[in-house]
Amino acid sequence: MNNYNKIAGHDTGRLIAISDAVFGVAMTLLVLEIKVPEIEGGNKDLATAFLQLMPKFLVYFLSFMTAGIFWMGQSAQFEHIKKSDRNLSWINLLFLLFVSVLPFTTAFLGDYIKHEFAIAIYWLNIFLLGITLYINWNYAVKHGFVPAEDKDEVSDAIKKRIISSQTLYFIGALLSFINSYLAIGVIIAIQLNYAFAFFRGKKQ
Amino acid sequence: MNNYNKIAGHDTGRLIAISDAVFGVAMTLLVLEIKVPEIEGGNKDLATAFLQLMPKFLVYFLSFMTAGIFWMGQSAQFEHIKKSDRNLSWINLLFLLFVSVLPFTTAFLGDYIKHEFAIAIYWLNIFLLGITLYINWNYAVKHGFVPAEDKDEVSDAIKKRIISSQTLYFIGALLSFINSYLAIGVIIAIQLNYAFAFFRGKKQ
Amino acid sequence: MNNYNKIAGHDTGRLIAISDAVFGVAMTLLVLEIKVPEIEGGNKDLATAFLQLMPKFLVYFLSFMTAGIFWMGQSAQFEHIKKSDRNLSWINLLFLLFVSVLPFTTAFLGDYIKHEFAIAIYWLNIFLLGITLYINWNYAVKHGFVPAEDKDEVSDAIKKRIISSQTLYFIGALLSFINSYLAIGVIIAIQLNYAFAFFRGKKQ
Amino acid sequence: MNNYNKIAGHDTGRLIAISDAVFGVAMTLLVLEIKVPEIEGGNKDLATAFLQLMPKFLVYFLSFMTAGIFWMGQSAQFEHIKKSDRNLSWINLLFLLFVSVLPFTTAFLGDYIKHEFAIAIYWLNIFLLGITLYINWNYAVKHGFVPAEDKDEVSDAIKKRIISSQTLYFIGALLSFINSYLAIGVIIAIQLNYAFAFFRGKKQ
Repeated sequence: MNNYNKIAGHDTGRLIAISDAVFGVAMTLLVLEIKVPEIEGGNKDLATAFLQLMPKFLVYFLSFMTAGIFWMGQSAQFEHIKKSDRNLSWINLLFLLFVSVLPFTTAFLGDYIKHEFAIAIYWLNIFLLGITLYINWNYAVKHGFVPAEDKDEVSDAIKKRIISSQTLYFIGALLSFINSYLAIGVIIAIQLNYAFAFFRGKKQ
Repeated sequence: MNNYNKIAGHDTGRLIAISDAVFGVAMTLLVLEIKVPEIEGGNKDLATAFLQLMPKFLVYFLSFMTAGIFWMGQSAQFEHIKKSDRNLSWINLLFLLFVSVLPFTTAFLGDYIKHEFAIAIYWLNIFLLGITLYINWNYAVKHGFVPAEDKDEVSDAIKKRIISSQTLYFIGALLSFINSYLAIGVIIAIQLNYAFAFFRGKKQ
Repeated sequence: MNNYNKIAGHDTGRLIAISDAVFGVAMTLLVLEIKVPEIEGGNKDLATAFLQLMPKFLVYFLSFMTAGIFWMGQSAQFEHIKKSDRNLSWINLLFLLFVSVLPFTTAFLGDYIKHEFAIAIYWLNIFLLGITLYINWNYAVKHGFVPAEDKDEVSDAIKKRIISSQTLYFIGALLSFINSYLAIGVIIAIQLNYAFAFFRGKKQ
Repeated sequence: MNNYNKIAGHDTGRLIAISDAVFGVAMTLLVLEIKVPEIEGGNKDLATAFLQLMPKFLVYFLSFMTAGIFWMGQSAQFEHIKKSDRNLSWINLLFLLFVSVLPFTTAFLGDYIKHEFAIAIYWLNIFLLGITLYINWNYAVKHGFVPAEDKDEVSDAIKKRIISSQTLYFIGALLSFINSYLAIGVIIAIQLNYAFAFFRGKKQ
């Protein structure tokens, strides 16, 4: 049976394809959580009902960003990871498991936005995404799937980025013990920072 | 951390792949809004119930076209955009956010087809799609991701097209203050025009 | 604006990618129509409830086959179609519109399997899929997107196949005026014939 | 019509693409089965309600792994299968049919976790996935779609693996007559074994 290890999972192409499919579906399924309100009446009532959906849209936006950030993170890694094996495939499937759970944790947070427990679960999801992505890179580097010149240049940047962002997320989540909207606001701010690099030099 | 900017998002391949996944899912999820009617009785009753779904099918058709038009627009741009960076990736993820919201705004319009507010929200969705697509092209051209020869030939055509279509959509949406079916009819007419180039020369 | 025609839709790659996404989603969404039964009691009751779902599974199987057949048909065409333009893209988007409607017409048939009207709607869906696929091939051949040597060899085979299968589907649908299970049985038999080529020589 | 056989289904590229789409959607749809609980009260009540979802998460994890294992299996085969024909396409579509049914059998098992009948249905799904995958490889080898050197090296490994894992699954399912949690636990253990190769040498 050891032969099977030799033949399974060498292709990063399909790993990337299934990742894009899972991300694409998860990102789009998120919107199913926002139900069209049922009202009687004119434009004013409809506008009021629509505005009441804003917390849901906020959470939706938050989760789309979360998915986007981790999609970017995985993409960045696979620009350097040139080979794969069975274990790396499973690490990525585990990562995708946590991606596919996002629509649930998002809906959970959307319904219980004032409960610290819901924020904790949401944070746990982000944390597990970060961990598996870290393991992914670590494993790929250790097993020689990343060409040497790439490794020297980017490996520390990738690891540092995951650790620093996860530290900030953790602090953000802790803030929910003071105020849950504050916690979510800070998490969104962290994400905007990582997404658009506002607080750093603007040179690319 | 600045190193991370260098390593993230150079690959237009995955950007295109995630786009196709989000578009594909959004286009297909739209149909979940059309529920099978529950009736007792024979073919006549079933046909009547089916015909009552026509406004829903109209809105479905409208939204499938909207998605198709913007998918074509993004495709056309990425035939010329040969490189990417982190910011361009985020511009496209924002664009995809507005794509993934289409099933909601479509259902919203389907349920409140006579409310100007619902048309306004739908128009806003189209508007945001147009804006992000415009920014996408602009950014790509400014940062040298479009080869010079392509830029001269097509850049103005792409921009003009977005501006003129968005102007027409805006006028179409304004018509909802007269009559909402008129507004939707005009928007569909604009889309048919852009899709099939009926009112222009037939030469390709 | 005529320049835009030159720059939109030359890429069959993305057309194929969005097709696979829409097919993949439509094929998988079909299963959402089959709800887990709610029962109290032991294995016997559960088995009984499960068996009552059989008509739903039959319709599911039918629709998965329908989607598979048209996916095969479109695949076969695009092995020969080497270029594309805006119109061909729109023909395919229209084709995908009818694919994305399959989960609805399937559910409709599943709920009203004894109504000729439901079979007629289902047949209409198959018919529209056939028509757009025929137009797709015709357009591609006329506009020189199919290399000359392929054209001579396969064009007639592709057209004949669509016409003969559509004729058989039409006859199958007409049988619903005698008995709707007979009609569905015949349609499935036609599909099995086209899928596995049982009734023809076994040579490939 | 025999000509059509010559022109359909030579492209493994699209077969792989539709597979990744169906797997991606099926894996992500699974989470829709886990509904956000509706409670009144504070964090404690929310945590309790969340913990009650654990059996659902267990089944979700099980099914994600099942999908992952068969995705890996199909991937491994298509690293060696270099050509395709119409029959091979249909074998794979049948395989995908059983993949797309996973969200249903998973939900079924999730709701009736103590019923042997539900475990039997779930096992049947795994069994059918194994069978079609076996047929896929067999057909590809017999029709010369696998290069000779690959065939000698890996063919037995692939077949043995399917047979031994299916035997273990069967034994696992039989255990449900003693205790259903035991049966599921053993099935998960089998899957972990196949996924991570815990009980074998650690060399890759």
